[in-house]
Amino acid sequence: MNLRIGLAQINTTVGDIEGNLKKIRASIYSAKEQKVSLLVFPELTISGYPPEDLLLKPSFISSCSNAVSSLANESDNISLLVGAPISSGGKLYNSAVFISENKIREMYFKRELPNYGVFDEKRYFTQGTSPLIIDINGSRFAVTICEDIWIPFGDVEKDLASASPCAVFNLSASPFYSGKLSERTERISRFARNVKSTVCYVNITGGQDELVFDGGSMVVAPTGEIISSANRFEEELLVAGIELAIENSNPAINEKITVVKADINCDESSKPVVTKKIINDDGLESIYKALTCCTGDYIRKNCFETALIGLSGGIDSALTACIAVEAIGNENVTGVSMPSRFNSSETKCDAKILAENLGIKFLEIPIEQIFMTYLSELKEPFGEGDSGLAVENLQARIRGNILMALSNKFNSIVLTTGNKSEIAMGYCTLYGDTAGGFGVLKDLYKEMVYKLSNFVNEKFGKEIIPKSIIQRAPSAELRDGQKDEDSLPPYPVLDPILKLYIEDNCPIERIAFLLNHDVEFVRKISKTVDRNEYKRRQAPPGAKITPRAFGKDHRMPMTNKFGN
Amino acid sequence: MNLRIGLAQINTTVGDIEGNLKKIRASIYSAKEQKVSLLVFPELTISGYPPEDLLLKPSFISSCSNAVSSLANESDNISLLVGAPISSGGKLYNSAVFISENKIREMYFKRELPNYGVFDEKRYFTQGTSPLIIDINGSRFAVTICEDIWIPFGDVEKDLASASPCAVFNLSASPFYSGKLSERTERISRFARNVKSTVCYVNITGGQDELVFDGGSMVVAPTGEIISSANRFEEELLVAGIELAIENSNPAINEKITVVKADINCDESSKPVVTKKIINDDGLESIYKALTCCTGDYIRKNCFETALIGLSGGIDSALTACIAVEAIGNENVTGVSMPSRFNSSETKCDAKILAENLGIKFLEIPIEQIFMTYLSELKEPFGEGDSGLAVENLQARIRGNILMALSNKFNSIVLTTGNKSEIAMGYCTLYGDTAGGFGVLKDLYKEMVYKLSNFVNEKFGKEIIPKSIIQRAPSAELRDGQKDEDSLPPYPVLDPILKLYIEDNCPIERIAFLLNHDVEFVRKISKTVDRNEYKRRQAPPGAKITPRAFGKDHRMPMTNKFGN
Repeated sequence: MNLRIGLAQINTTVGDIEGNLKKIRASIYSAKEQKVSLLVFPELTISGYPPEDLLLKPSFISSCSNAVSSLANESDNISLLVGAPISSGGKLYNSAVFISENKIREMYFKRELPNYGVFDEKRYFTQGTSPLIIDINGSRFAVTICEDIWIPFGDVEKDLASASPCAVFNLSASPFYSGKLSERTERISRFARNVKSTVCYVNITGGQDELVFDGGSMVVAPTGEIISSANRFEEELLVAGIELAIENSNPAINEKITVVKADINCDESSKPVVTKKIINDDGLESIYKALTCCTGDYIRKNCFETALIGLSGGIDSALTACIAVEAIGNENVTGVSMPSRFNSSETKCDAKILAENLGIKFLEIPIEQIFMTYLSELKEPFGEGDSGLAVENLQARIRGNILMALSNKFNSIVLTTGNKSEIAMGYCTLYGDTAGGFGVLKDLYKEMVYKLSNFVNEKFGKEIIPKSIIQRAPSAELRDGQKDEDSLPPYPVLDPILKLYIEDNCPIERIAFLLNHDVEFVRKISKTVDRNEYKRRQAPPGAKITPRAFGKDHRMPMTNKFGN
Repeated sequence: MNLRIGLAQINTTVGDIEGNLKKIRASIYSAKEQKVSLLVFPELTISGYPPEDLLLKPSFISSCSNAVSSLANESDNISLLVGAPISSGGKLYNSAVFISENKIREMYFKRELPNYGVFDEKRYFTQGTSPLIIDINGSRFAVTICEDIWIPFGDVEKDLASASPCAVFNLSASPFYSGKLSERTERISRFARNVKSTVCYVNITGGQDELVFDGGSMVVAPTGEIISSANRFEEELLVAGIELAIENSNPAINEKITVVKADINCDESSKPVVTKKIINDDGLESIYKALTCCTGDYIRKNCFETALIGLSGGIDSALTACIAVEAIGNENVTGVSMPSRFNSSETKCDAKILAENLGIKFLEIPIEQIFMTYLSELKEPFGEGDSGLAVENLQARIRGNILMALSNKFNSIVLTTGNKSEIAMGYCTLYGDTAGGFGVLKDLYKEMVYKLSNFVNEKFGKEIIPKSIIQRAPSAELRDGQKDEDSLPPYPVLDPILKLYIEDNCPIERIAFLLNHDVEFVRKISKTVDRNEYKRRQAPPGAKITPRAFGKDHRMPMTNKFGN
């Protein structure tokens, strides 16, 4: 006997209760067509994830609750597990609602609330205490939410191991970073082995501000082996058959466990559905897809249709343009070249070639006259003495102004092009090259920018990003003969230091030891990173693709005198 | 018999372990001179508050730990209670360290960890479980940290009520907002009454990024009456005598309570020291001091000496300039007037008069030529059609550029002048008037800007802010004859709506009912607030003076389709 289940990997939008309901209903429709008996949705399906401080609004909670109730009518011939924030007894719970036979039958409240990294769940939710078992024809199915199954030897694992369910459903909203999939798979497999049951894991997909959710829903056997999985970064309904375990040898159930008996159709004849497709962590490809997905969703979900990118002829803006084209189509992207006296003819030319290669619109607006006029108006207040940095930043800010003027005029979002190495070091101009709505490469170290640029050319089998852009020494071109290396260590030296410092909170002595550098050299870099926190606070959001991005998971004080 | 205690209300700086130690040592020195036997410091004295993600760095934790150890030598003839993050058994605790007789005698771990509003303590700390009693000659003194005494009928209150201490020390870091003092006093008084003991409450003072701590340390009698208090917004050593309760009628102590016996000098003869000065919540005065304190500390702690303000001749920039002058002195403030064709001669003149009244430097840099040059370069890409908003924003951004150029040239921080009403409604230009390092009025509704401007003139007994500035209808002066009321409801209508929506999470139907408006009118405003979250994410920090400011306590998604 098999229970035919569906895992509805959908792309929800935060706050879009009506829109999310529509997607839920569409999934129910498809699932019914595929004879699914129990359809499982991801964590906080109704509200989108993470709803952040929307959860503090009573009207939001009641709207979510009403939406859940409206689904009761949809549960004829199909049972549902839907995620929603549910208020009960004056407390708010991150909940899985079990809907069957046209009724809300039971609620499960998430027991492990993550409150680290990008997560703030203890800000909003109370922990649940009771496991939930759905009893279908004597077979037990357990309900869990995301973090519940991430804690080795945790309470959830212990409770469920004792209840011997034949399958554990896990409603998730697990954000991507590079390498996350193997970590996630390992955790799920370990849980399946420890509880000795199949795990049916359903994740959301799509971008939400700085986070991107990679889907990759999966069914994992009690052996820990993945037996079926959905694609990443796109919606999918994954259907599987779970064999019931109806022996009468079930151990007695602990009284703290809630059990709900459900009358759900099971299939006498069919074998468990096993899909062959198994996802794996495909390195650059997954980063490329994550950036495309997050950028595209930020643009669309915020009601923009078109994007503007300042094309300098450098590698950052080139890669940004490629991703934008993949995300929203070349007909919706405009490259803007804004040359000054300091731009070489090579970079100007490369910007144009790139635009041609991508088939995007191309504007050239020189900044020289504007720059001269500023200098003339500032001559008196500036007086004598070196105005180097002020004058360099001024050029970047003129470009920011031009892009924002075009943005305001044409209702087109400006995509910024700064990479994580620059942003870490403050090697960028606030209100200049940081001006825009979304920072596509915000979480990519410069070395990753190179790797991904080569990947793009390989993927498309042609030189979309001109080789000369990839090979030229990086320069901001804000003064004559300027090179990044005048101000920063070479990126192959800098990037590993930044990674250890930012992502691993590694002490500088340890970084110096691990990478064989002088401690003072590392300290100079770490202090530069700290000192520039104020710039990052005013930077636009961007897709998180590393374990720790500058954003919600990097809450550093601006006023901070710690020097190690 | 009396125990002579000191409450060291100091202005710590986050991450400045050496600097904080210096202040601690200076307090010890003064306290010894005043024959204090036990000196109590505020919460997280060593690290500053809130240290945020510095707490995730092992090197930060070990540096704090070393700093605590170094204080053991300072405890001859005086005992200390110092706040620090302490790692124990692989977990981190928000701790009070009891140092006496040249030794670290005991640690208390905070039991109630706030994880709401601006607080993220569950992100970092594990909850303590055990109360701590210091037994001095048979009299009991309890140790608590901040939130521990804020929970009515909480575990801490119950445990301490059963232990009957003669006094409870509370190490605090309690940020200011208008009205907070009465709330705080009420909570402390209630706790004192419920536990039937004196509460010795010590708070930090000073600004840290968006937070300002108002000091106001106090000694509260078991009756709930304040018997002594320190000033607000400045450092002070508050000394008091606490009468010992040495009867042998002390109830037995619950075994879960940690008791440390300490040999501390008590004074046979002297009476309890009672200072007459009692603080109260003095409305506008406290807001004015909070803004001055927070602005001044942000500037100084980030190593700036001077500030720049764009003076438009409007009320926001006028009040900002007054506060800057109070914070860092008129010799360190420069007002910059940047008139365009749309500025009236009256506003230009008022900007100049204000600068003269304040005795600050005054620069005039017209933007007309620069504006014309932009328009000429943008003529082709703009083409035909209305470019109204783009051209308005352009002017604001030219001003932002000029201020930032001066900032870069003279290493002077730009203070932004936007108020909470504008920022809520997005009635401001990103990278234009929002460009700068600190937003002085960021948490003041426009109506409060008026009140505080009148307060300044009254306080100084003369018209520092010209009456014409206060009386003129607000205008951004970015097009001919523009008035704020063309785009926004009048502020007396708008501000109460914003307050209910932002601070109270009030549903719009309820706001409409309470303020007698049409629901659709309120919805239009609430949607405008939501839609402009992206601008606020890129705004500079500013002093929090209301229960909910735009900042750490307003974590709204940018991508958000919730419409209620």
